[in-house]
Amino acid sequence: MRILITNDDGIMSEGIIILARKLSEVGEVHVVAPDIERSATGHAITIRNPLWAKEVKFGNEFFGYAVNGTPADCVKLGIQAILGDKKVDLVLSGVNKGANLGTDVMYSGTVSGALEGAMMEVPSIAISSCSTSNPNFMSATKALVELIKHIDFSNFPKFSAINLNVPAVDYDDLKGFKLTHQSKRRFRDFFEARQDPFGNTYYWMLGEIVEDDRDPQADYHAVEQGYVSVTPITMFHNDPEFMKILKKESFFEH
Amino acid sequence: MRILITNDDGIMSEGIIILARKLSEVGEVHVVAPDIERSATGHAITIRNPLWAKEVKFGNEFFGYAVNGTPADCVKLGIQAILGDKKVDLVLSGVNKGANLGTDVMYSGTVSGALEGAMMEVPSIAISSCSTSNPNFMSATKALVELIKHIDFSNFPKFSAINLNVPAVDYDDLKGFKLTHQSKRRFRDFFEARQDPFGNTYYWMLGEIVEDDRDPQADYHAVEQGYVSVTPITMFHNDPEFMKILKKESFFEH
Repeated sequence: MRILITNDDGIMSEGIIILARKLSEVGEVHVVAPDIERSATGHAITIRNPLWAKEVKFGNEFFGYAVNGTPADCVKLGIQAILGDKKVDLVLSGVNKGANLGTDVMYSGTVSGALEGAMMEVPSIAISSCSTSNPNFMSATKALVELIKHIDFSNFPKFSAINLNVPAVDYDDLKGFKLTHQSKRRFRDFFEARQDPFGNTYYWMLGEIVEDDRDPQADYHAVEQGYVSVTPITMFHNDPEFMKILKKESFFEH
Repeated sequence: MRILITNDDGIMSEGIIILARKLSEVGEVHVVAPDIERSATGHAITIRNPLWAKEVKFGNEFFGYAVNGTPADCVKLGIQAILGDKKVDLVLSGVNKGANLGTDVMYSGTVSGALEGAMMEVPSIAISSCSTSNPNFMSATKALVELIKHIDFSNFPKFSAINLNVPAVDYDDLKGFKLTHQSKRRFRDFFEARQDPFGNTYYWMLGEIVEDDRDPQADYHAVEQGYVSVTPITMFHNDPEFMKILKKESFFEH
């Protein structure tokens, strides 16, 4: 199994190093990741500037390529240029420091790495350890390895990916794996206004989490209860419910 | 009707100026848009740096606020800080110079402006004129105004938005409005490798469009045929088909 690994915390972050080393027991690992942290980059790509891919070594050991781009850039460049003709069997993005639950998915560079793999028709998984202050990258990585063992990749749909969120506890303390929906857990943002030394107002964005999604399959419920949350996601934004509402309008051509 | 307008081509671009001026005949318009072009930013937000909102005037006429952030930042800041307690009835993002069809949606700053409005539970529409070289912002704006007249905003679902793509022809030459799906129209990317003057390889991303989506409701079909494409979209990435496949695995807890 040939595995391309990226992330959004940057190639020097602990999460990707632990993931890459552990997964090299499972397959042939290639790391192509952003040179610096690219959190909350959404699904950005670099279209106006060229990309550089620099070799990163830890001592004498080659680790991977650092790219001056986003996670999506890294997946594109990794598959199309760095790996060339070699077929990639699996794209992994992570391990992220912090959860990607609910509406985090929309903003997440980690998830965008996996969705870019999905767009390139490669089975793809985003992995997050659900604590920013005290993540457990090893338990998240072990949960991923366990999940990989149980997935039939021949059934993995084109243009789809898995969003994996692992409670930040030791692997043996995880309660199991739950299939979940992306919930509507979100941030209620507010802005703190300040004056800069030149008399201009500027704003810091702050937010508090709103968890009002009562669906028992909500992703954050699973994590709260100590389960690994496994959310099947698609790269598409189609809204069949809204479509039904609009179809009632005679205004539209059929 | 209080309308917040943003875009991803930047506040000085022709598309947003035409849109804002025309829409001021329909409602109370507030423009909060990126200070510079932010194309292909996906759904990025600014979380590590503060945001400035500078007043932009054309001559003596106040036009709006230029923000050192992404379209999603502009919508957040506009609703939460600049408009303060005033309720926003509609978020518009555009008019983009160029189509946002198929997988463009995933990368599009224009669409992300509308999806951010959706997340803040405000009816939101992204508007694109389907030519980068010769856009017709006025016909796109007129099509939007016509669409607004025919939408029952009380039925507009929370967390949903509309992605509007308008052929770049005169308004009178548009054939009508079609409800469409986001298609799987995508780019097959490749990279051109070059050497910089210091001996390092760098890459330019290039791509050709793949239009192999045979669904007659595909967004790009409607535009090709001269219709305005109206795609209902959601901010969520849930994948019910993939969920069905995974549910067959006994591995997951129920």
